[in-house]
Amino acid sequence: MSTDDTTDTAAASSTESKCGTSSTDTSSESDCGAASDSSSASNCGASASDGEKEVGATVEDFEGDPGRLLAVGLGPGEPEGMTARAKAALADAEHIVGYTTYIDLLPDDITDDADDIYSTPMCGEVSRTEEAIDRALAGNDVAIVGSGDPNVYALAGLALEILESKGGTASAVDFEVVPGVPAAQSCGARLGAPLVNDTVSVSLSDHLTPMEDIESRLHAVAGEGFTIAIYNPWSRKRRENFQRCCEILLEHRDPETPVGIVHGASREDEATRITDLGTLPELGEEDIVDMTTTIVVGNEETYVWDGRMVTPRGYETKYDY
Amino acid sequence: MSTDDTTDTAAASSTESKCGTSSTDTSSESDCGAASDSSSASNCGASASDGEKEVGATVEDFEGDPGRLLAVGLGPGEPEGMTARAKAALADAEHIVGYTTYIDLLPDDITDDADDIYSTPMCGEVSRTEEAIDRALAGNDVAIVGSGDPNVYALAGLALEILESKGGTASAVDFEVVPGVPAAQSCGARLGAPLVNDTVSVSLSDHLTPMEDIESRLHAVAGEGFTIAIYNPWSRKRRENFQRCCEILLEHRDPETPVGIVHGASREDEATRITDLGTLPELGEEDIVDMTTTIVVGNEETYVWDGRMVTPRGYETKYDY
Repeated sequence: MSTDDTTDTAAASSTESKCGTSSTDTSSESDCGAASDSSSASNCGASASDGEKEVGATVEDFEGDPGRLLAVGLGPGEPEGMTARAKAALADAEHIVGYTTYIDLLPDDITDDADDIYSTPMCGEVSRTEEAIDRALAGNDVAIVGSGDPNVYALAGLALEILESKGGTASAVDFEVVPGVPAAQSCGARLGAPLVNDTVSVSLSDHLTPMEDIESRLHAVAGEGFTIAIYNPWSRKRRENFQRCCEILLEHRDPETPVGIVHGASREDEATRITDLGTLPELGEEDIVDMTTTIVVGNEETYVWDGRMVTPRGYETKYDY
Repeated sequence: MSTDDTTDTAAASSTESKCGTSSTDTSSESDCGAASDSSSASNCGASASDGEKEVGATVEDFEGDPGRLLAVGLGPGEPEGMTARAKAALADAEHIVGYTTYIDLLPDDITDDADDIYSTPMCGEVSRTEEAIDRALAGNDVAIVGSGDPNVYALAGLALEILESKGGTASAVDFEVVPGVPAAQSCGARLGAPLVNDTVSVSLSDHLTPMEDIESRLHAVAGEGFTIAIYNPWSRKRRENFQRCCEILLEHRDPETPVGIVHGASREDEATRITDLGTLPELGEEDIVDMTTTIVVGNEETYVWDGRMVTPRGYETKYDY
């Protein structure tokens, strides 16, 4: 899910590790503007690449057999939102690596049990993933964690890319992805039944994807009957992306189209609002829309009933009820 | 996820219930052609509407306070794929309602604990959902279960629509959706990291959605950089939808585009194959593509490495590794 607020800039817990490289110095990462969300590191472009270590270690630097590497999805954040399989995978892991906010969400019985926890603040995705892989190559069983699902704007792909760049193989570390509930569905659940039929997820973060591509995708899906989950809708440096997205949606969809906003799901400041597309642009500067927000846009069938978004699947066209 | 094969035509367990209506006679539903998948009931159109009871009970038929109604997502099917929250919700439920295959997947400690289990074979979505709601209106705490997530080609929306048609409210039954891991992500996990960036789910079932709409949606997303999860890709009566989908994808995407196929996830006959778009059309008549299959189509960046699909998010354009 879209993540965190600006308060989490604590330095990473830098710990000893059974690892060919030295422990990562993450002090440069805490300077990198915590306003961006970790999944896109959109404000971190410049400073992160300054602070990012180049890949030093490759498979040749390690002796002995590698351990396992798992990418584990935590779901929305509360412990009960994790699958039993995710919980078991974390219990088995010797080292757990992740963004500080997600590490902090882990239950004590899991963190107490691990040999080592390696956490970094925002803007550390590449170095954090490299560190996780180095630790696995060094022989540890490592779990790299994130909220939601590892295949949804998360690090499963990056882990495989970095493994390859280090001369490793996925098979050698028995690489496995342990899925979790993505933000589209955990936020959708809080809104009622807004998704239901063909649906699309689009991220408004243009750190890694050009804005023209994002706009093209928005046009394509807004003109069709997709329900749309918008990830990373806003940050201080991306206000215009949010406004542009609203404009594009309004070119194709009725201003009365229901829109659900879920801010800070699973956090103390969680807030949910159901509004409409015509109202959405003005909410960009309200607290409810920030980097912890997921927005769900209905299709032309979606309506609001008893405080919930409902997207019919089409049963009403075929059945009597 | 896309569901089941043709072998599950056992009659529903029809049981006594604390309910204003009589127990549902489901014998007509077991005639309705089990080849279709439950989430779309595509072969069930005619016989199901013949066999479907009209909504008899409304809120006025019940006395006393309603119980709770939860729509619970089970994830891919194995017990450890369920979230802790889903497990707790089922443990709390007095009545559990669902398609027979999913009920059979529930661990014994959950089913033994429930006061009543109501299951129906395929083609019973509407009557099954009505039954679940009647039982909640009658005062029972009811959980209606499905694989994956209740907001993904599942029954969360239908439950709200039927509640409204019965004159009830979501608030009165404290309606709640308990999310689960959708098939796109649980199958994606089995393929490696195929999704990663903006992604879309499209169902090829045209029972409730006109095929021309499905084709229009496929064109729209195939021409953009979305990774695509295809649900309900095939059934005996929908072979041409699969072929049409392949044609549309090939109009826009390279024949070498990686495609992952996951058949029967979590079942004994689970099978995974990574192939390409050019090969996909000929697989429609192979066992690996049926109604239990989810297909994941890569975008132009996706590649196959060490037996896994990898879709880069774009880090390689900004970082050295």
